[in-house]
Amino acid sequence: MTRTVEVTELALRDGHQSLLATRMAMEDMVPICEDIDQAGYWSVECWGGATYDSCIRFLNEDPWERLRTFRKLLPNSRLQMLLRGQNLLGYRHYEDTVVDRFVEKSAENGMDVFRVFDALNDVRNIKRALEAVRRTGKHAEATICYTTSPLHSVDMFVDMAEQLCEAGCDSICIKDMAALLRPQPAYDLVKGIKQRCGEDTVVHVHVHSTTGVTLVSLMKAIEAGADIVDTCISSMSLGPGHNPTEALVEMLPGTGYETRLDKDRLRKIKKYFAGIRPRYAEFASNILGVETDIFDSQIPGGMISNMESQLKQQGAADRVEEVMAEVPRVREAAGFPPLVTPSSQIVGTQAVLNVLMGPFKVLTAEFADLMLGYYGETQGDRDPKLIEAASKQAKKEPITCRPADMLKPEWDQLRTNALELEGCNGTDEDVLTYAMFPKVAPKFFVDRANGPKNLGKSPESQTEPSAVSASGGGKSIT
Amino acid sequence: MTRTVEVTELALRDGHQSLLATRMAMEDMVPICEDIDQAGYWSVECWGGATYDSCIRFLNEDPWERLRTFRKLLPNSRLQMLLRGQNLLGYRHYEDTVVDRFVEKSAENGMDVFRVFDALNDVRNIKRALEAVRRTGKHAEATICYTTSPLHSVDMFVDMAEQLCEAGCDSICIKDMAALLRPQPAYDLVKGIKQRCGEDTVVHVHVHSTTGVTLVSLMKAIEAGADIVDTCISSMSLGPGHNPTEALVEMLPGTGYETRLDKDRLRKIKKYFAGIRPRYAEFASNILGVETDIFDSQIPGGMISNMESQLKQQGAADRVEEVMAEVPRVREAAGFPPLVTPSSQIVGTQAVLNVLMGPFKVLTAEFADLMLGYYGETQGDRDPKLIEAASKQAKKEPITCRPADMLKPEWDQLRTNALELEGCNGTDEDVLTYAMFPKVAPKFFVDRANGPKNLGKSPESQTEPSAVSASGGGKSIT
Ligand SMILES: [Co+2]
Ligand SMILES: [Co+2]
Repeated sequence: MTRTVEVTELALRDGHQSLLATRMAMEDMVPICEDIDQAGYWSVECWGGATYDSCIRFLNEDPWERLRTFRKLLPNSRLQMLLRGQNLLGYRHYEDTVVDRFVEKSAENGMDVFRVFDALNDVRNIKRALEAVRRTGKHAEATICYTTSPLHSVDMFVDMAEQLCEAGCDSICIKDMAALLRPQPAYDLVKGIKQRCGEDTVVHVHVHSTTGVTLVSLMKAIEAGADIVDTCISSMSLGPGHNPTEALVEMLPGTGYETRLDKDRLRKIKKYFAGIRPRYAEFASNILGVETDIFDSQIPGGMISNMESQLKQQGAADRVEEVMAEVPRVREAAGFPPLVTPSSQIVGTQAVLNVLMGPFKVLTAEFADLMLGYYGETQGDRDPKLIEAASKQAKKEPITCRPADMLKPEWDQLRTNALELEGCNGTDEDVLTYAMFPKVAPKFFVDRANGPKNLGKSPESQTEPSAVSASGGGKSIT
Repeated sequence: MTRTVEVTELALRDGHQSLLATRMAMEDMVPICEDIDQAGYWSVECWGGATYDSCIRFLNEDPWERLRTFRKLLPNSRLQMLLRGQNLLGYRHYEDTVVDRFVEKSAENGMDVFRVFDALNDVRNIKRALEAVRRTGKHAEATICYTTSPLHSVDMFVDMAEQLCEAGCDSICIKDMAALLRPQPAYDLVKGIKQRCGEDTVVHVHVHSTTGVTLVSLMKAIEAGADIVDTCISSMSLGPGHNPTEALVEMLPGTGYETRLDKDRLRKIKKYFAGIRPRYAEFASNILGVETDIFDSQIPGGMISNMESQLKQQGAADRVEEVMAEVPRVREAAGFPPLVTPSSQIVGTQAVLNVLMGPFKVLTAEFADLMLGYYGETQGDRDPKLIEAASKQAKKEPITCRPADMLKPEWDQLRTNALELEGCNGTDEDVLTYAMFPKVAPKFFVDRANGPKNLGKSPESQTEPSAVSASGGGKSIT
């Protein structure tokens, strides 16, 4: 008896986000959509994460138009997105009705599967979005951000899975953005979730390939009963990206598991992206091989390059190793948050400051908020002395409630502000763009009519690869 | 109870052979030997394969001096080499006493572990070398070349393992040069060998990483009881090379298996080669990602680039795909040989000719010899009509005996010829150099006094990568 393992293709979102700084233009994805649509994937991740930001900041592309185009070009596929819970795709907490509105609009424009996570694994920050998804009748996937620390254990993650099931979801995602999920914990975690939450709980496994061990972890996760796994077509895979889809397909014969993917379609998709990827060499990650030091530092690849660029700006490029050693200390002080957008940036920047100015001499506003509970509850205890210092510096008290509970209804104000902007088309979609990126949206609304920019260049006309993070918003870790 | 899995490090031989066309100068390996020696490897592969050829053809380096240097710099390590059975490190069969002499001299100069294989898996071509190794008291490792075909099965390879054990050996190597060994067959094969030949039979697994699935295969091989596995330090890994040593180490925690490698040493070795590898960019393989099409064509990566360069020389660069489709037909006609040096070159060149001139209109001399049994017995039946055509063309009869049985004692003649060459130092080692490379040795003997050439260049002074096979002997597949 052979069991079918379902597959999510990541090329259209996390693949180019991880390898090409999310710069791929819609134009370069359109021609291959038919093959992707016919290849037999369970879902096609193509939206959310850093793509929304990148669309309006770099590509002059309306993200909602991108979504509608995918909907049209992938009629047989489940479209999937990554959603940062109460942060939506922005960098602050939004009041609940904004969350509801975003989910409704995404569903209306064609989204099918919402993978919802919170950077601190605070289930309260995920719940509202899950409920909103369920009201639309779409697939609500609740996410565990996997990390390792003296605190974290398989049991702790299984407990979290149980809370997520109780909160109501259609599947559980184990999300391993830094490639820290080793084979045995992968097995134990999937097994543990199935035992605790029921064998029919759908478990979806998302791993990156940075450390080189996670295809083995996928094998073990499958043996433990994982239902769906995430991979990326080979020509858009490896390094800080993901395991190659074709390698997943080819490792299974004889094992009692199989995918239902069409190898001829995969070959076409591979060939297509092999032609596209070199056009974005300028934005390419400079981590290409395998990096196992991550097991000691827990620092995802993209985070290292962000910190490097911050150090460079301060004329302290030679202090990277000190900063990497500082990260675990900052994490401990902050209750061992997983390192994923935005906690990765908050912890990374604080580690840089600690090395340059002395340990916690200066706190960033964001780190102070993290210590004071304004991002939510951390899984570990936070350093009481630093909470006090943060409170003094930020002139606010620590909170223990759900951060969004502090917010007043804000939709009408957001709508009013957005509509005042030149070029705003008055739709709820535009209001959401403004809500999430108030600094970038005004320029985007004005420039939108000029149409999308394709930042790809023919390989012959490439200049030297430049530091990606120098060109703007830094790298998202998801 | 945790079982220790032993590891062979490949960086000093197969690593740079697979990734940098065997061009690494001894000078670039010397500084890291101490760390390699102290890292806890079971053995360090550092000699044989294509390194001998490369030393005298490209590097003006005496291969025996290289061996003695490794012996000095790796006092605590087992030195390991790859030996092509009755072909030694050359491209024809040698009479038995030449084989004996080569093995004796290698042992005398410091070799510990002899991995002996035959490209056709003809055990008769491996036996003499194994016996010679055993007489020296060194480790005789007998090799199964893994391949896939309609003919090959796990059982067939287990049968071969049994023959090898009966022939007398200290360990069995499963050698997967094209990365075709999937996880389940890896498990079944190791298990099968242990069951048939005894649980205490030492099984050593060598896989390449080209298809992206073989780290999973190593996991399964280990679960089935594999004793030793081959990997390459991460900065010299992946693509047509091997799985990263650090990834092997890091995938094991919790599984009940562990290595005894020192992670700090591995970090140093990684860092060191990360600095060296870019100096050889000119010789770098252009296959870097994962190539799963190999499962259909069974063509190892290096073989494709050889065929491409042959086609280019004939102005037919656009016919690569036809040639790739032709390879399985040529293989079938020739009794499904594994594709490894020299069968990979023989089959590849014949496939090119078939596409350019029509199927088997012209046979190369080597393909004719293969069909007539002059390389040994193939595991499948050969096409009788082509045997007849080969016999006519080559004006010789097919043979069924061991090819070396046709040879008369030749050592004295080889010695006489070698000693006549300018610069020959009169040692048996020099005679062996002449015996294996009669066309290259004369020039090498003359130039030797000028000392080794280092073909590495600072990354800044690199020119465009050139086709490796254009610069000489083509790529060896081992
Ligand atoms: Co991701
Ligand atoms: Co090899």
